[in-house]
Amino acid sequence: MAIITLTTDFGEKDYFSGATKGAIYSELPDVRIVDISHSVSPFNIPEAAYIIQNAYNSFPKGTIHIIGIDSEINPDNKHIALKLDDHYFICANNGIMSMICSEIAPEKIVEINIHDKIQSSFPVLDVFVKVACHIARGGTLEVIGKPITEIKPIKNITPYINEDKTQIIGSVIYIDNYGNVVTNIKRSFFETVQKGREFEISARHYTFKKIYNKYSDIVNFDIPENKRNDEGRKLVVFNSGNFLEIAVYKSNSATVGSASTLLGLGIMDAVSIRFEPKPVIPKGTEIPDNIKAANF
Amino acid sequence: MAIITLTTDFGEKDYFSGATKGAIYSELPDVRIVDISHSVSPFNIPEAAYIIQNAYNSFPKGTIHIIGIDSEINPDNKHIALKLDDHYFICANNGIMSMICSEIAPEKIVEINIHDKIQSSFPVLDVFVKVACHIARGGTLEVIGKPITEIKPIKNITPYINEDKTQIIGSVIYIDNYGNVVTNIKRSFFETVQKGREFEISARHYTFKKIYNKYSDIVNFDIPENKRNDEGRKLVVFNSGNFLEIAVYKSNSATVGSASTLLGLGIMDAVSIRFEPKPVIPKGTEIPDNIKAANF
Amino acid sequence: MAIITLTTDFGEKDYFSGATKGAIYSELPDVRIVDISHSVSPFNIPEAAYIIQNAYNSFPKGTIHIIGIDSEINPDNKHIALKLDDHYFICANNGIMSMICSEIAPEKIVEINIHDKIQSSFPVLDVFVKVACHIARGGTLEVIGKPITEIKPIKNITPYINEDKTQIIGSVIYIDNYGNVVTNIKRSFFETVQKGREFEISARHYTFKKIYNKYSDIVNFDIPENKRNDEGRKLVVFNSGNFLEIAVYKSNSATVGSASTLLGLGIMDAVSIRFEPKPVIPKGTEIPDNIKAANF
Repeated sequence: MAIITLTTDFGEKDYFSGATKGAIYSELPDVRIVDISHSVSPFNIPEAAYIIQNAYNSFPKGTIHIIGIDSEINPDNKHIALKLDDHYFICANNGIMSMICSEIAPEKIVEINIHDKIQSSFPVLDVFVKVACHIARGGTLEVIGKPITEIKPIKNITPYINEDKTQIIGSVIYIDNYGNVVTNIKRSFFETVQKGREFEISARHYTFKKIYNKYSDIVNFDIPENKRNDEGRKLVVFNSGNFLEIAVYKSNSATVGSASTLLGLGIMDAVSIRFEPKPVIPKGTEIPDNIKAANF
Repeated sequence: MAIITLTTDFGEKDYFSGATKGAIYSELPDVRIVDISHSVSPFNIPEAAYIIQNAYNSFPKGTIHIIGIDSEINPDNKHIALKLDDHYFICANNGIMSMICSEIAPEKIVEINIHDKIQSSFPVLDVFVKVACHIARGGTLEVIGKPITEIKPIKNITPYINEDKTQIIGSVIYIDNYGNVVTNIKRSFFETVQKGREFEISARHYTFKKIYNKYSDIVNFDIPENKRNDEGRKLVVFNSGNFLEIAVYKSNSATVGSASTLLGLGIMDAVSIRFEPKPVIPKGTEIPDNIKAANF
Repeated sequence: MAIITLTTDFGEKDYFSGATKGAIYSELPDVRIVDISHSVSPFNIPEAAYIIQNAYNSFPKGTIHIIGIDSEINPDNKHIALKLDDHYFICANNGIMSMICSEIAPEKIVEINIHDKIQSSFPVLDVFVKVACHIARGGTLEVIGKPITEIKPIKNITPYINEDKTQIIGSVIYIDNYGNVVTNIKRSFFETVQKGREFEISARHYTFKKIYNKYSDIVNFDIPENKRNDEGRKLVVFNSGNFLEIAVYKSNSATVGSASTLLGLGIMDAVSIRFEPKPVIPKGTEIPDNIKAANF
């Protein structure tokens, strides 16, 4: 049974997501519809790009992903369908797919051309559903669009690096449900630049010298539970999508606060990493006293 | 496979919608349950009426729609089931169905009478689910209720028109996820009154002289993208439900604001349309200079 | 077809719930996934416990419930799977199950031990999904964990009662979508203590002497609808989960207010019940005038 997922900024209240599901079942009774998110901030393309990039590859190969963000067709905003990593994506050509495509090359991209006489203010319902059902029935992309080779990029989505490779300047691309602050710095990019060097991460007035693999790695479990005081502590992790994230342990805006509120970090704010220019001396190496004093 | 949809004011957090779905699957393992919305404002009947009216007809014929808003049974609030447009609706007789019924006559209405000993504070779970599963199994409405001919109306849901047909006074019935302001003035009603005349739409201190078919129709695409300044511009469209809507292009309350916040328009606020009493002279018609001065 | 439900604090926006569903379908194409709630307050274990307790038993026997709240594994927070009341539950051993287990003894509990090399910041996806699919395929709990006999309790989840049984001191454990205030006092517990006596419920400055079975029982339907004034009236009911709840009739924070806002009641606030120490004299019993004056 084909799977069609939905990622939109329709919100939880309006009839749009319900109507979209109804239209899919009307065309295709035997299909599985899965909501990824309908709570993307209105017209927020980087948010949608981050969500779909991190959700899509948990689904089986062949899944069809409808992304309904800023999808009204006009001379600057065409509709496209892509095959990439054996998944299908249907969306507007507004940059949403550029985050995924920067890591995995699309196998095929078409500009959808089945609009003919559709003058719609609800293109997800009128166009994307039709394309999704066509693909679900085994149809090819060429039937519903003409092949293109380039898609529109998102601006400022990749981090900067300085010439002597001592600094990465990234930015906040997402704030999650816990108020944790996700940057555009991926683990693979970080490690390529780091080459084992010590580093210091700066965000506003805060600095961090360590990146954890999971949130509770900051807790010292040798201390009895009732004597610990870790809730609300700030830390940096590579999150489950492998993005560098500034987090607060067991954050909750109503009680201990969150990384976003406590550090005052919002979307597009800078997060930078400075690397030691000198080679790192492995721990335990004996260093003569006079050298140690000079260098460290 | 039968489809049962849910439209409620249960919200996204509580156990009510989960328990309702569990109860349906317990009665009927082979059914498709589709959430239309659980975020209707508490007890807000016009909102629910607007949502279900715009969502239902995207679903296949035969779909069963449970509407759980203000559904506690009492002497003034009976439970009903309707067949209309080959869809089934189960709800309280509190006005929710009057918006749809004003456009399409119901084929059959029954007052549900299977309550006998049910003393429930959760009628959606205890009553509506039973009725929905009965219908899904092919049961008739007469088995679960006694036929009635009238349902309760919603007050103030239709717009007013003055005697000489120069003015429509409508009101705001819905604010959508983008902050766009939906009125109770439908395209068909507007066009019947307009008869091709020029018009002016007034809402608070703002006036509009044009109604667009889609949001981006206000953009002049001949101007290069980086020189345009359309985000945040106010406009009027007939939305995808064919209701007259006051919108803000790419609205987002966190950045450019929304129609609701920028114009200060809330539910039940008035939106009026004044029509020219004079016949419209088609564009391009040659008018003698002395007449033009006097009339326009 | 197996049913897997999801109860988490992932929120409505993030990719976590979508990715979880994708991972389930990737392992098990023929399964039914049902969202119970993704809007549990972050790390709020009592809230999650209340939601799952009230939702689970509407589902068919054999349903598998994934509960993703505070589920990162660490020395103090192991993963467990339970069979109870012919349902399966997969969660962290952080107290979530103690509310259900205080009423129904679990048939089997295991501490999950399939983690070997998983160093994950997303255990619901990496561990709980695997366990759920194992159970859905008919696998036993012993294969994925080692039997244990005790689970971690939630503190302060049961009400107190004084020695002479004239007073119950409960607390608020949940605020629902309507702002109604749910206490930890269950109908069965109340009735056991009450033994037919008169009582007075106190919450902040408000007192109540009656508990209703449904919300609209406070309305006098003999008064014509347009002369009634019940919206916004405070009352106490046993809710659909049989918990004592302080409610406001047709509450809506935007209009008439809610029990939580009007009474100023939040999570963990006290709600107490004082019982008459004297036996209750049934209504209609003739009492000599001198006695009546002294005692009542």
